[in-house]
Amino acid sequence: MHRFVRRLLTEWRRLQLPQTGETFLAAVSGGADSVALLLALAELRDNRKLAGRTVVAHFNHSLRGAASDEDAAFVESLSAKFNFELALGTGDVSREGNLEQSARAARYEFLLRTAEDLDARGILTAHTLDDQAETFLLNLIRGSGLAGLAGMRAVTENFRLKTADPKSENETTKPAVRLIRPLLGWARRGETENFCRERNIEFRLDSMNENLEYSRVRVRKILLPALAEFNPRIIETLSRTAGLLRLENEYLEAVESRGPEIVAGPLAVGELKTLARPALFRLLRRWLTANRGDTRRLELKHLEALERLITSRKSGRLVELPGGETVVKSEGALYFRRPGLETAGTNT
Amino acid sequence: MHRFVRRLLTEWRRLQLPQTGETFLAAVSGGADSVALLLALAELRDNRKLAGRTVVAHFNHSLRGAASDEDAAFVESLSAKFNFELALGTGDVSREGNLEQSARAARYEFLLRTAEDLDARGILTAHTLDDQAETFLLNLIRGSGLAGLAGMRAVTENFRLKTADPKSENETTKPAVRLIRPLLGWARRGETENFCRERNIEFRLDSMNENLEYSRVRVRKILLPALAEFNPRIIETLSRTAGLLRLENEYLEAVESRGPEIVAGPLAVGELKTLARPALFRLLRRWLTANRGDTRRLELKHLEALERLITSRKSGRLVELPGGETVVKSEGALYFRRPGLETAGTNT
Repeated sequence: MHRFVRRLLTEWRRLQLPQTGETFLAAVSGGADSVALLLALAELRDNRKLAGRTVVAHFNHSLRGAASDEDAAFVESLSAKFNFELALGTGDVSREGNLEQSARAARYEFLLRTAEDLDARGILTAHTLDDQAETFLLNLIRGSGLAGLAGMRAVTENFRLKTADPKSENETTKPAVRLIRPLLGWARRGETENFCRERNIEFRLDSMNENLEYSRVRVRKILLPALAEFNPRIIETLSRTAGLLRLENEYLEAVESRGPEIVAGPLAVGELKTLARPALFRLLRRWLTANRGDTRRLELKHLEALERLITSRKSGRLVELPGGETVVKSEGALYFRRPGLETAGTNT
Repeated sequence: MHRFVRRLLTEWRRLQLPQTGETFLAAVSGGADSVALLLALAELRDNRKLAGRTVVAHFNHSLRGAASDEDAAFVESLSAKFNFELALGTGDVSREGNLEQSARAARYEFLLRTAEDLDARGILTAHTLDDQAETFLLNLIRGSGLAGLAGMRAVTENFRLKTADPKSENETTKPAVRLIRPLLGWARRGETENFCRERNIEFRLDSMNENLEYSRVRVRKILLPALAEFNPRIIETLSRTAGLLRLENEYLEAVESRGPEIVAGPLAVGELKTLARPALFRLLRRWLTANRGDTRRLELKHLEALERLITSRKSGRLVELPGGETVVKSEGALYFRRPGLETAGTNT
């Protein structure tokens, strides 16, 4: 077996994925990463290392006209050549707003629905070390805390669409589908290209991957080479850091899920004064999230202002948050107020 | 008052530093950052906003021959001009090993000893947002987890030299000295230079700051400008991220300090199997640190290998760590072994 195939098998076992009896849906765009994954899956099947059913899934965004249709035709012929079933999806992606995000949302919705239709328990995507490092840098440049810098997981146990209401009965009664990234922990993009070439299998080039208008392309073509001047293994280094931060973040979330539930409504100041600063900040962030729905645009300075509101008698009775929201201290408690409302979110 | 001076006063109050009755030691190299700090401290004193005693401290590393002596003479005349007492230190810095690290260690030792001699409770340094961002990037490039990426603090309550034994009686009986970085949270390097120029006060240029052989200089002159193409406020963004990660790390350390003490010696496997993955990894890291002294060269893959050793009956009985160390599973417990030793560190 080729080294690439052997490493995929090693990772498959390391992740304790089933080698028989399950249906997997392999997302294939036609690019080098997903074609290499498909080739390796075919060789593992032919070598009787994997015995489950694998269905190739391709979503045609129709964003690049004839090129998109050619991608779909390419994946169709590739699937036939290697004896895989194929699920083709098409969809119009809204050109308003963030095109990359809309395209990804439509693609993942197709993948999840197809997996459910096929009773597949796992979706395989071909994300590499390079994708992990690029995503980390994009989030870093944008400005992120721990949760934002936490990397993708090799296995997401219960994959859900972000748009779906997690509480809807429809969602929770369906069996869980895992999102599996079996190349994420070890494969460089160059390795996927080399593996395709060594097997004399073509792959499609996406013109978007050359367009420097996209931040991700500039990160790949300008920033990462600059970073490699400092550390030639910068891709592996950043991927590892993203993985370590993901672990720390999961640990923090696990610790907090054991703590008292924080609900929207007034927050008594008395007990807060006894907390150490990091614990206070965490608690304040959870309380603000309960009131606001998310932590968007919240910064350290807002938490510091709330800390002063709690600890100091001299620092006034009001803290301004982004978007006109305020926190008011009154009679020993903090109250969250939305813009234009006298009080909001009390649930006593 | 100049905006720079007002912002220093705002930060001074925000950090709840005493405005009277205490002695501060201000570390002044002669560069723009520390000269700006000195000027602003003089103006706050002259405006009766700060009434404590402030002593200027300068350490002559003697690394750049005549230029080093000129720096010392410059700081001496500056101190005289602004009516500050001066503490001058000199020392030979070992040219073996990492020169920057040796120089910093010698400088901080001088600062701490001088503060203790003067009964000063605070050492002021002129680190800026730029220093925070550069340090973050250097640690990121080198490869770091959460603790390594956590930024400098504006106030370190009980400053200790890294070389000192924290348990030595000599250290613990001395009163605590705070390390204070009153520019860290708000000042850009360009602002310190502009403030000096607007006050018609010269500052010294360090030729090392132009030498591209130093990673820090390349980060400042090549990498940060490349990042600014993506985000013009990259310095502020990275500083904020470093501050957020520091908070998360302090919170984790606080959480762990409440957990059971982890000592070197055998680690029973049974209870470990019930832990969630992030908690298991944290515990394993603490156990390895107790045995090894630090987490150097430990990677995620080592923790994952230990996880498999714990959870799987099939995965052998030994995991190799960096530097020839091993962890052996035997009779329901993990044993840490140093290279060449049969067993090590048992304390049952």
